[in-house]
Amino acid sequence: MKILIINGPNLNLLGRREPEIYGNKTFEAFFEELKNEFPGVALEYFQSNHEGVLLDKLHNAGFSADGIVLNAGALTHTSIALADAVGAITTPVIEVHISNVHKREGFRHHSWLAAKCVGSIVGLGLEGYRLAIRYFAK
Amino acid sequence: MKILIINGPNLNLLGRREPEIYGNKTFEAFFEELKNEFPGVALEYFQSNHEGVLLDKLHNAGFSADGIVLNAGALTHTSIALADAVGAITTPVIEVHISNVHKREGFRHHSWLAAKCVGSIVGLGLEGYRLAIRYFAK
Amino acid sequence: MKILIINGPNLNLLGRREPEIYGNKTFEAFFEELKNEFPGVALEYFQSNHEGVLLDKLHNAGFSADGIVLNAGALTHTSIALADAVGAITTPVIEVHISNVHKREGFRHHSWLAAKCVGSIVGLGLEGYRLAIRYFAK
Amino acid sequence: MKILIINGPNLNLLGRREPEIYGNKTFEAFFEELKNEFPGVALEYFQSNHEGVLLDKLHNAGFSADGIVLNAGALTHTSIALADAVGAITTPVIEVHISNVHKREGFRHHSWLAAKCVGSIVGLGLEGYRLAIRYFAK
Amino acid sequence: MKILIINGPNLNLLGRREPEIYGNKTFEAFFEELKNEFPGVALEYFQSNHEGVLLDKLHNAGFSADGIVLNAGALTHTSIALADAVGAITTPVIEVHISNVHKREGFRHHSWLAAKCVGSIVGLGLEGYRLAIRYFAK
Amino acid sequence: MKILIINGPNLNLLGRREPEIYGNKTFEAFFEELKNEFPGVALEYFQSNHEGVLLDKLHNAGFSADGIVLNAGALTHTSIALADAVGAITTPVIEVHISNVHKREGFRHHSWLAAKCVGSIVGLGLEGYRLAIRYFAK
Amino acid sequence: MKILIINGPNLNLLGRREPEIYGNKTFEAFFEELKNEFPGVALEYFQSNHEGVLLDKLHNAGFSADGIVLNAGALTHTSIALADAVGAITTPVIEVHISNVHKREGFRHHSWLAAKCVGSIVGLGLEGYRLAIRYFAK
Amino acid sequence: MKILIINGPNLNLLGRREPEIYGNKTFEAFFEELKNEFPGVALEYFQSNHEGVLLDKLHNAGFSADGIVLNAGALTHTSIALADAVGAITTPVIEVHISNVHKREGFRHHSWLAAKCVGSIVGLGLEGYRLAIRYFAK
Amino acid sequence: MKILIINGPNLNLLGRREPEIYGNKTFEAFFEELKNEFPGVALEYFQSNHEGVLLDKLHNAGFSADGIVLNAGALTHTSIALADAVGAITTPVIEVHISNVHKREGFRHHSWLAAKCVGSIVGLGLEGYRLAIRYFAK
Amino acid sequence: MKILIINGPNLNLLGRREPEIYGNKTFEAFFEELKNEFPGVALEYFQSNHEGVLLDKLHNAGFSADGIVLNAGALTHTSIALADAVGAITTPVIEVHISNVHKREGFRHHSWLAAKCVGSIVGLGLEGYRLAIRYFAK
Amino acid sequence: MKILIINGPNLNLLGRREPEIYGNKTFEAFFEELKNEFPGVALEYFQSNHEGVLLDKLHNAGFSADGIVLNAGALTHTSIALADAVGAITTPVIEVHISNVHKREGFRHHSWLAAKCVGSIVGLGLEGYRLAIRYFAK
Amino acid sequence: MKILIINGPNLNLLGRREPEIYGNKTFEAFFEELKNEFPGVALEYFQSNHEGVLLDKLHNAGFSADGIVLNAGALTHTSIALADAVGAITTPVIEVHISNVHKREGFRHHSWLAAKCVGSIVGLGLEGYRLAIRYFAK
Repeated sequence: MKILIINGPNLNLLGRREPEIYGNKTFEAFFEELKNEFPGVALEYFQSNHEGVLLDKLHNAGFSADGIVLNAGALTHTSIALADAVGAITTPVIEVHISNVHKREGFRHHSWLAAKCVGSIVGLGLEGYRLAIRYFAK
Repeated sequence: MKILIINGPNLNLLGRREPEIYGNKTFEAFFEELKNEFPGVALEYFQSNHEGVLLDKLHNAGFSADGIVLNAGALTHTSIALADAVGAITTPVIEVHISNVHKREGFRHHSWLAAKCVGSIVGLGLEGYRLAIRYFAK
Repeated sequence: MKILIINGPNLNLLGRREPEIYGNKTFEAFFEELKNEFPGVALEYFQSNHEGVLLDKLHNAGFSADGIVLNAGALTHTSIALADAVGAITTPVIEVHISNVHKREGFRHHSWLAAKCVGSIVGLGLEGYRLAIRYFAK
Repeated sequence: MKILIINGPNLNLLGRREPEIYGNKTFEAFFEELKNEFPGVALEYFQSNHEGVLLDKLHNAGFSADGIVLNAGALTHTSIALADAVGAITTPVIEVHISNVHKREGFRHHSWLAAKCVGSIVGLGLEGYRLAIRYFAK
Repeated sequence: MKILIINGPNLNLLGRREPEIYGNKTFEAFFEELKNEFPGVALEYFQSNHEGVLLDKLHNAGFSADGIVLNAGALTHTSIALADAVGAITTPVIEVHISNVHKREGFRHHSWLAAKCVGSIVGLGLEGYRLAIRYFAK
Repeated sequence: MKILIINGPNLNLLGRREPEIYGNKTFEAFFEELKNEFPGVALEYFQSNHEGVLLDKLHNAGFSADGIVLNAGALTHTSIALADAVGAITTPVIEVHISNVHKREGFRHHSWLAAKCVGSIVGLGLEGYRLAIRYFAK
Repeated sequence: MKILIINGPNLNLLGRREPEIYGNKTFEAFFEELKNEFPGVALEYFQSNHEGVLLDKLHNAGFSADGIVLNAGALTHTSIALADAVGAITTPVIEVHISNVHKREGFRHHSWLAAKCVGSIVGLGLEGYRLAIRYFAK
Repeated sequence: MKILIINGPNLNLLGRREPEIYGNKTFEAFFEELKNEFPGVALEYFQSNHEGVLLDKLHNAGFSADGIVLNAGALTHTSIALADAVGAITTPVIEVHISNVHKREGFRHHSWLAAKCVGSIVGLGLEGYRLAIRYFAK
Repeated sequence: MKILIINGPNLNLLGRREPEIYGNKTFEAFFEELKNEFPGVALEYFQSNHEGVLLDKLHNAGFSADGIVLNAGALTHTSIALADAVGAITTPVIEVHISNVHKREGFRHHSWLAAKCVGSIVGLGLEGYRLAIRYFAK
Repeated sequence: MKILIINGPNLNLLGRREPEIYGNKTFEAFFEELKNEFPGVALEYFQSNHEGVLLDKLHNAGFSADGIVLNAGALTHTSIALADAVGAITTPVIEVHISNVHKREGFRHHSWLAAKCVGSIVGLGLEGYRLAIRYFAK
Repeated sequence: MKILIINGPNLNLLGRREPEIYGNKTFEAFFEELKNEFPGVALEYFQSNHEGVLLDKLHNAGFSADGIVLNAGALTHTSIALADAVGAITTPVIEVHISNVHKREGFRHHSWLAAKCVGSIVGLGLEGYRLAIRYFAK
Repeated sequence: MKILIINGPNLNLLGRREPEIYGNKTFEAFFEELKNEFPGVALEYFQSNHEGVLLDKLHNAGFSADGIVLNAGALTHTSIALADAVGAITTPVIEVHISNVHKREGFRHHSWLAAKCVGSIVGLGLEGYRLAIRYFAK
């Protein structure tokens, strides 16, 4: 079983940026935990600040992986191209947001991706990624 | 540890109503599975079609339970009173929706509850309740 | 043949409240006329000011009655839960309004129920109930 | 007693156009049934695709007929001139729509005519015309 | 000097329709007064309930007349085609409304014609036509 | 003289819930003060989290009491049924809000009740109830 | 007969400011023409850039003058206080705009004054003032 | 104790203007009553139609008075400058409206001042001023 | 093969009206070119300023022609009746606009017809008609 | 003569993605047909999922090519930068969409590019590219 | 060279009002610094809380000064009259705001003045005035 | 002291593109002037058409530079990711626009970046960059 985690713009700053919202653990450290926790799953982690690179990645992995956990960062609210890519590939995608976007600015309440994904997990911190993997792994 | 699942209006019809959206398993049957799966957790299930009864329940349980999993059904989109109750109690609440509300009518995209809950799990079917319990149980 | 008339909030005041809009005949008196007029139909009349009670009633009757005539009063404009119930049951429902809501305040022009009902009869006074029954009885 | 049925644009296609929405009976055939059913009523049927012709007809008949049953088709949603004519004449008008416009596109939910008519019957198929005549005939 | 007065839908009812808004003098009677008052001006009066006929009239007269006084009735608020015709012809046009449209329903506050006309005179009753002719005649 | 105070959803939590907004005195304690302060007035206090129960109460008291002081809590912003009840009864009603709703979220700025009440007192804490009673008692 | 012309902010610049829109004649020069043209009318001209001064003037003259011609300049679009004053006085007011505001920016299309005035004359240049006086003088 | 009452534009017409809305007592007469009623309070009354004068007054009194009762008239709905002044001074301000603005035109439902004041009393006639003073005097 | 070109209101002025937008060739001259260019196609050209006449034409030709090229002029933006007719007939329709409507006023950006047509060609001048015919002829 | 075809995000999936909307021919195969069909035109094809790469391409080719056929995919609806680039270069651009975007979700109805292009061809499938080339080649 | 600084309503409170937003230096003290810093420039400072007085000042200085630095305070968001004055005078104007209005309430994001000024400097504190003068002085 | 100037999409065309808006000096030439003018400041200039590259640059420089002058071009209006990056880094950022965006299309009036920057300088041409550097250098 192959599951891919894709993080979008600014999420490389995790642990450095606004820790009161996002916590101070780097995603790389968290990813090591996940790999230990799911030894039977081929987990891959990918991050880019480039919408085009994220699109290429979705195209490349999206017809063979068994699940994609996608946190597109701010592109969630602006990129119809990413939503179209999620709709075009055959791998199911779960949208994850670390913070509760509904407690924040109004423009973070709308997601172009939501209607194209299987579902979404919002506001449960890094735990959201774990639950999404668990959903696919089941 | 005490965790309460609260379902709102029309969710008593689960298994009978629009199975192409909600599946055909009754919630009661699913709840039995959950109790077996989390033997160390005091799980309670409560359903009502009455907003007032749901409010009373939140008030009664919301200062002592360790977690509440709340699927308010259509009241999600119309009841500020429920949102205020979630904001007023001290027990953390996770919002769950069985179907992916973002694939459905526009008026189902807005939740009055979302900003008052810890977070939300949407579109993952009954599995959403299980993941929410797992989050609290952790 | 079994047909149920359901009236929502404040319609118990009929005959007392704003007679220039709603007339001064009580619904009970009118219902007696209807029973005489449709001797071959099992007519039932139900009124409640409680959304939850109306939901319970729709659930109980909505899989066995042959038709429901529903005037949800102000809940017409605010209750998605009632609309979901109408959509979930198998009995066909006709929406009736005594006054012509389109001559009144803008917020009365939208009905959450309309899209879930077979159709609607608006502005024809108590006669609207009679025509709705006639439609089902045909 | 004189009652006039007026149909607007595209309703001449009834029976040919989108039968899954409008059924496959022509209005002329239905009108013959009506005439037989209401022998004591002078029923007239008029159809035009021209807003101006419909206005002229309303002006000509609208101070002498006892009732007008009006299905203005798409002009319902665009013609303030027709609404003004309904408001200017003295004959009472009932608005009828064959399909349940509230189940269709959003722009069909608003009627310029509704506030000027006595009331409206929507979604009950051709039966809506019969009920409207019955209302006037009473 | 040639000046044309054009009235649109329902204005043929003037003197009959809603006299509390439009007064009870027919336009024909008023037009006789105008002809006496401006003996040196070739005045013509034209009314139609048909948008297409109004368009044809504007095309025919709009390159030779010296001025057009246009009260398009309800088409004021709905007809871009009339506005385009006013913009396409070379004769200057003044928009007139008998009643003060700004005291009435919101949808009467917007005129598609206004931006294409030289100017407008609103709410001064039939006197508005006289002032418009006086403007052109000067 | 009979004056009724009605509090809506979540106001039973007063003194427990968000004291930085609502203060930490229970309404029951405050009500004792009021009774002492207005010995000549028959004061009654009623609270419910159920819209339907509030409607029933308004119907029962609203044709005989001399004044009603109504704080409908969050139903203020969502219940047209309550507004209709206030409009239907003959007892005058004053709307009271403890906190200044205009300093809070935008959705709290609109009240369905306001146009049906005599007036409103907002943001003056529990003192608002006292001033409302004083208004009626005068 | 006493008629007052009131001009609001920036209209003192007439003849200097944007002559392609407003022409290059000063209002004072035009006012001399008017006085000669209407010898039997007591004409007064008043201009101020101060909303408060305009309000005082309307209060002072608005219960004794026979007519007021008001061009409130940009306050037309922003001052509800001026509209209230026009509604409160007993002298009838005609709103005049020199340019055709409907050809200009969208925010100039709405007038707070329009619904409180008898009517308006827009886009006919300084001639609009003359026609307004003629209306009152008649 | 020093309490200042400030009235804005057009309120000098009280007793003369639209008595069906505002009553026919002048504010000066009412103010005499108030002074008699609160002998221990240094009451001052100030009215102006000029926004700038009202701002100057708020600046002058707003750091020394114990309370300000402010009815800004139509400026309530348009003046952010007044709202900023209320927010900048240290004296607490209560907003009062004589009529129930929520029964009137939609544009009167929004107050720029409301969020900067302690609270507001609306629709209770001149009694609103008395209750506001009583609040401060307590 | 039979292809029909239908032009709506004001397009009879082509060559005379606003040549900077629409060019100065008459449509009749252009149509002669087209007939020469497509000798194997039965080309017909029809123009009317009357919505009703256009509807009649679509009904008459729309079940037998092989393709319709439709430029409805300003009715594009206002006529749902035309859109319904295009949806009701069986002949495929291509929408053509001579000018690039997206460079012009906002109200020209929306077409009621677009969703009912096969597709549209916009802004390519008279060449748009030629390309549309070529599409059908292929 | 040099003509460039530029395709944006996700269009590399053509033939694989949602064939019921986009057909199952790859663009590369189609492009071979085009090269054969227009032997005298230097045709180039370019695709990228990266907005920045598309911008660079437009800058590089947009001052020397004779025509650009641009299908920006979902960036059509979100990229003002692309629209600015189209407006900044001197080569004329035609916008093409394979599907009829007006039959799809509302957010696909608006194009930032449309107002900067010469024109657009929508809904005619791959044929749209051919017609655009034909337009330039003429 | 003559440069005028104009400050609008409430800016006289600078140094006293909300120092966490505006700092605690009075503008007069800052102006002394500026005069020392630009000895070759005839600097003038003017403040008023009266819109009318600001308009008069702009008219008086706006055809002779070499530059105006304008901070209109809250009138920025409400006064079209000030914007018209800036557009009518010939002296170039730079808009300055001390705080970053885009970090504050939504209604502070729109400036009627911005489109009439040369440009604007926002959020750079008192330094904004200095930079604006430097721009003119260059 | 290290200050970075970052220009976004299409700004590489400066001097070539729409010189009536942006002038005809290349940014490189202007940057040479700046380096001469601020010999004590380590000035760097960076331009890219790629959002992702701009994000990477902000991340790399945004924790060590002393100031960033950012003109994000059209991404100003569409990129929440850039705004998030500005909010995440610790280097203060000033937003600069060469043209007065408030005189241009409405969609250029909103900046996602504005609320995250220290402030902004708009409409002052290339001079805006100089003033921003001067602000940081002070």
